[in-house]
Amino acid sequence: MEARPSSNVDARVEALTSAARAAARALAAAPARARGTALGEAAARLRRTEAALLEANHGDVERARAAGESAAFVDRLTLTPARIEAMARGLEEIAALPDPVGETIAAWRRPNGLEIAQVRVPIGVVLTIYESRPNVTADSAALCLKTANAVLLKGGSEAQATNAAIADTLRGAVEAAGLPPAAVQLVDGGREVVRGLLGRDDRIDVVIARGGEQLKRTILEASRIPVIKHFDGICHLYVDASADLAMAERICLNAKVQRPSVCNAIENLLVHERVAPRFLPAMVAALRANRCEVRGDPATRAIVPSLDAALTFIARHSTGLAEAIVTEDLTAARRFLGEVDSAAVFVNASTRFTDGYEFGFGAEVGISTNRLHARGPMGLRELTTYKYRVIGSGQVRS
Amino acid sequence: MEARPSSNVDARVEALTSAARAAARALAAAPARARGTALGEAAARLRRTEAALLEANHGDVERARAAGESAAFVDRLTLTPARIEAMARGLEEIAALPDPVGETIAAWRRPNGLEIAQVRVPIGVVLTIYESRPNVTADSAALCLKTANAVLLKGGSEAQATNAAIADTLRGAVEAAGLPPAAVQLVDGGREVVRGLLGRDDRIDVVIARGGEQLKRTILEASRIPVIKHFDGICHLYVDASADLAMAERICLNAKVQRPSVCNAIENLLVHERVAPRFLPAMVAALRANRCEVRGDPATRAIVPSLDAALTFIARHSTGLAEAIVTEDLTAARRFLGEVDSAAVFVNASTRFTDGYEFGFGAEVGISTNRLHARGPMGLRELTTYKYRVIGSGQVRS
Repeated sequence: MEARPSSNVDARVEALTSAARAAARALAAAPARARGTALGEAAARLRRTEAALLEANHGDVERARAAGESAAFVDRLTLTPARIEAMARGLEEIAALPDPVGETIAAWRRPNGLEIAQVRVPIGVVLTIYESRPNVTADSAALCLKTANAVLLKGGSEAQATNAAIADTLRGAVEAAGLPPAAVQLVDGGREVVRGLLGRDDRIDVVIARGGEQLKRTILEASRIPVIKHFDGICHLYVDASADLAMAERICLNAKVQRPSVCNAIENLLVHERVAPRFLPAMVAALRANRCEVRGDPATRAIVPSLDAALTFIARHSTGLAEAIVTEDLTAARRFLGEVDSAAVFVNASTRFTDGYEFGFGAEVGISTNRLHARGPMGLRELTTYKYRVIGSGQVRS
Repeated sequence: MEARPSSNVDARVEALTSAARAAARALAAAPARARGTALGEAAARLRRTEAALLEANHGDVERARAAGESAAFVDRLTLTPARIEAMARGLEEIAALPDPVGETIAAWRRPNGLEIAQVRVPIGVVLTIYESRPNVTADSAALCLKTANAVLLKGGSEAQATNAAIADTLRGAVEAAGLPPAAVQLVDGGREVVRGLLGRDDRIDVVIARGGEQLKRTILEASRIPVIKHFDGICHLYVDASADLAMAERICLNAKVQRPSVCNAIENLLVHERVAPRFLPAMVAALRANRCEVRGDPATRAIVPSLDAALTFIARHSTGLAEAIVTEDLTAARRFLGEVDSAAVFVNASTRFTDGYEFGFGAEVGISTNRLHARGPMGLRELTTYKYRVIGSGQVRS
């Protein structure tokens, strides 16, 4: 009998997920100190294996060039000594953050004497799917290791040799710290293996999708496992009748042009009709001076007759990531904060602050566009879940 | 041109979800007092429309009898004046609970002066799918109304007339309180409409699946929307070498026979080999005296050589809902609490306490077997999510 290719895929999926599951259990039981040791050791080994990492990366870069990839693509893919040093420092920074695992979220005593505590625990097995930048391999592995989650890393095929070299280095460090190397596994194999993994909701607890919109939509279609999405935002800035217009211009420019390609940059500018004549000409000129094309039917896109009209427009067009109001009016600020249903709602500040580091989380897993479990900027806590620990003295239920 | 049936289904799905979305926005903006008024009014109207509810129910009961349904099924379906009074009192109890919406989960100030608050907000639109007991209609609607979520209720077809009468009463109360009646909608239409709803992840934010295992698995297969599952548990009780054996017997009997059909009753009893000869004969006799059939290969199911063996057995066979240890040994208790990866882990208490009321939540949406968003007993908070409110004074990102 011939082995069918699909049974090879099944066997690979089974091996990866079964090892990850076992590693997750061992990680959860291991002391936090071992995870810290592994992260420190991983940073040291990344620096030590610089030459090997650069050589592996050189092969990926040559293949990408030969395949005619764009200069920007090749740049994202390329490792340099400085980028390896930045990866190593990133691991050390994650190691230095407070450990969220074991944190007591709430604790109380019931009238029958039961003592209940809700405590943070690892999620379990995390599958991270991402594209091109090899630093995501080190970063994702470190965030999961810090939170005692086993991780399956599926990077882009164009970075396979680089990712394999980074993952090998990390696995060595994990093993040296007395932890199971299967805590960090690189997924080798193509789309069929990924499709197989996305069906294993018995073994994998969450999928984190980072990368292009098409990749994320494909994952969402195929997955039986909860997916933490990182979709692009359609973000709004509303300039109220009472706004400080100089502040509004600063915030608008920052939110639009400081880094236009990111998810928390604004797409739509709404201006109260009472200030539009004073505000818009200079604002449009400033945006154009920053090479920003300004579009739109003034009656529906830019000028709004009221806060209510702005709220209605935002409710219809926002993707729920980040919106901001510029206003000096307390009632308008309170209504905007209350009624805009987005992950982050700003008064008199740029939407660009929708970010794990800017929020003070010390790390960023991503910016979730889910409503449940994790919404908006994700730090280490969002890589945990909780369980209830209940201590009694023989209580039974009547 | 003839209208195809599927376009009727699409139109129905579109109408239900579009009305629910608009209602969710209005509910989120309405004052908490209006929701309280609606719940109080709903209780009063349930009592006032007793005769109409009983009449609608009579029709459902007659159809179920004619269809040859079991006596237990017909009993679950039947309304009585006492059951209507219990429904009304249930609504009043939910109305009296603290409002989780608007609660500040955490708040902090960044070095740049940004003030960030993480606050609880409604999830949005909830689809609840359930079977036979009509009180779930009132209960689900009230829990969602309390938390400012719009709800789509899909009950069993055998209770359709009863559910419609209850939902009409509630909608009247919602409208009388000045809230949009589409906050509570009963889903009329069969499986095709449900399948259509489960595809609308653009309009529905979460599905709560209550009812039989088959129903829940079907929903999970079909849904593009996050599903909060309430699957049955495989729960374990481990009697440690150091256990107070009289306590162990009380807890085991309670966990097994007090209400054997529920998800938090135990399936597997594990006994340390050192106490098995003293413990098992009396325990098995007690279980049998309570008409409980005791099965199993003693080497693999009941007697374990150590705590480690018990932990390994539980890791393999538990569904992660609730497990308990009976022990007088602190180290064993701490290891069990730390290493058992279940929603609720008990020391010296019955697994039957895995329950929203027993945990002190004042209400129970269900007992989730998800790991993310809501794990274990769900109260009102688990019907909320959060957003970040950020107040600045003109900050831009550099």
